[in-house]
Amino acid sequence: MSIANQQVILVERPDGAVQDSCFEYVSAQRAPILDREVAVRTLWLGFEPAQRGWMNDIPSYRAPVAIGEVMRAWGVGQVVESRHPDFVEGDLVHGELGWQEWCIASGDDPVVGLVPVPPEIAEPQHMLGVAGATGLTAYFGMTDIARPKQGETVLVTAAAGATGSVAGQIAKILGATTVVGTAGSEAKREWVTGVAGFDACVDHHDEKVRRRLREQAPNGYDVVYDNVGGALLDAAIFNIAERGRIALCGAISTGYLPERPKVGLHYYQLLTTRRARMEGFLLTDYAEQFAAARTVLCGWVADGRLRVAEDVLEGLEHAPEGLRRLFEGKNLGKQLLRVADPM
Amino acid sequence: MSIANQQVILVERPDGAVQDSCFEYVSAQRAPILDREVAVRTLWLGFEPAQRGWMNDIPSYRAPVAIGEVMRAWGVGQVVESRHPDFVEGDLVHGELGWQEWCIASGDDPVVGLVPVPPEIAEPQHMLGVAGATGLTAYFGMTDIARPKQGETVLVTAAAGATGSVAGQIAKILGATTVVGTAGSEAKREWVTGVAGFDACVDHHDEKVRRRLREQAPNGYDVVYDNVGGALLDAAIFNIAERGRIALCGAISTGYLPERPKVGLHYYQLLTTRRARMEGFLLTDYAEQFAAARTVLCGWVADGRLRVAEDVLEGLEHAPEGLRRLFEGKNLGKQLLRVADPM
Repeated sequence: MSIANQQVILVERPDGAVQDSCFEYVSAQRAPILDREVAVRTLWLGFEPAQRGWMNDIPSYRAPVAIGEVMRAWGVGQVVESRHPDFVEGDLVHGELGWQEWCIASGDDPVVGLVPVPPEIAEPQHMLGVAGATGLTAYFGMTDIARPKQGETVLVTAAAGATGSVAGQIAKILGATTVVGTAGSEAKREWVTGVAGFDACVDHHDEKVRRRLREQAPNGYDVVYDNVGGALLDAAIFNIAERGRIALCGAISTGYLPERPKVGLHYYQLLTTRRARMEGFLLTDYAEQFAAARTVLCGWVADGRLRVAEDVLEGLEHAPEGLRRLFEGKNLGKQLLRVADPM
Repeated sequence: MSIANQQVILVERPDGAVQDSCFEYVSAQRAPILDREVAVRTLWLGFEPAQRGWMNDIPSYRAPVAIGEVMRAWGVGQVVESRHPDFVEGDLVHGELGWQEWCIASGDDPVVGLVPVPPEIAEPQHMLGVAGATGLTAYFGMTDIARPKQGETVLVTAAAGATGSVAGQIAKILGATTVVGTAGSEAKREWVTGVAGFDACVDHHDEKVRRRLREQAPNGYDVVYDNVGGALLDAAIFNIAERGRIALCGAISTGYLPERPKVGLHYYQLLTTRRARMEGFLLTDYAEQFAAARTVLCGWVADGRLRVAEDVLEGLEHAPEGLRRLFEGKNLGKQLLRVADPM
């Protein structure tokens, strides 16, 4: 019996925002599995801004997704068939499953990177959010790059996003006295202060955002965790405290386009007069510490110190929309796509 | 007998570049010295871009020079009269003498900061350059912030300037394999490669400066020591290597104006994908290490590993011109003003 495998293939590189026309839906045959391979049914897919970057045909820390290739994405799936000793039918696994119903891969392939969803995770899709790429990025960015100290004042941009919401709550857990966020809608700002426990949340659309940020932290921000870039990052630099640290996580405002971003940073000279530091980092550099960090993050979720939000679309045909929503600022919390239910 | 003290007073804050009309020349009476005071005759004055910043009426790491005040400047002078036990007639001293023929100050005043010119200095005016603010800035910026390692590739902007020329040579001494500079004139570039021993020097006026920098370092720059800011700093960020470090020393291209610099940085997202760092620093934070660093710098000068250039104007009436020359890119090496000869 042959089984169909619905796949979403990149057929055209986007010129600007992600368009539906960049993708084609093909119904491939699910190949029979070979020795040491497993057949994984995709249950959940996660969306990250970095995916838009991987669609650009420019050299970067990872090769671009090739034209004709299944769109690259992390997902959570269920093992349906296995010829690999580490995986058995029914296992929930995390890996680079891609935008497809089935991922047939070697259990040893480091790129796909299949790993069991660990038992401490409350919901399997947390493996894509709070215990996945975005949550781990927040964890390492805060604990290793930004390093807020007891009593410090912290700014997190895109605070209602999957990374920002976790980053700000980690800053609180680490002892920051004041944690300020930014977000673009009232609903998000209410969630950021009311649920995620930030002390304040500033509207990044406010024309006087520099002043609004200053009002919340008259002595400046000791730590900035930036997911937005552009004018908002510049406003953050304007408000950096002496010996402040800016962790450059992402730049959603740039759209992750291949060309030079239009909005530049102008207040960089203040980094000198305030002896401040701005530093980029990549999650992939911390792979050896993922398991330990997941345990910490899941513990904080379990004891209620870390609140998570998820924004869920249904059905593989909505994958392009899921990615687009990140750049339109529509998602509150982790943008997910539910592809199928577990057995 | 009353002695005249020619002084250059700030009477108007510049709107843009330093103008002669910002200053007035007054002939004050040299006051008689009080207990613990010394009378210092100014021999040399040094010029730093930071002086232009101190003329802006905006909050910064130091209060602005007040209207009606003698223009703030470091200088080397000779003690002519002393009622302080640490200073005797004839001593050469360094301190914040200001744009004036005579500095009458308490030997204990931490702002003026009178210290003897140490005997290891070959020429007293080195206390303003290679062993003064610019040389010490290069020393701490390189050894503490940029930290080039054996075999690394280093870029120094404004490499013919007082700070850049020292910074690049220190990088070589620390073991950098390739040190590339930038400079705006052919004479400067010849000095940078021919005398200061840089491996190459790129014309920062070249429209394709990003490409020229890449040609000199196809794998990118591990260290950037930036004195220029703006488009040249952006070109440096474009060419930063993985885990590169950018020491933000100055931004002469901005003119140190009070308003937001026109040219912004656009390639900051590369700091993330290349896990790079950009960090500002101020010389004043290293005051306790000045004496030790001076000894090291003077040793390198003495054994010929560190070459210095000086650009000398004569006469106090040329002080505004001396400051202006920095921003016009006219000086090769340390811009100095000779005010008087020692006794």
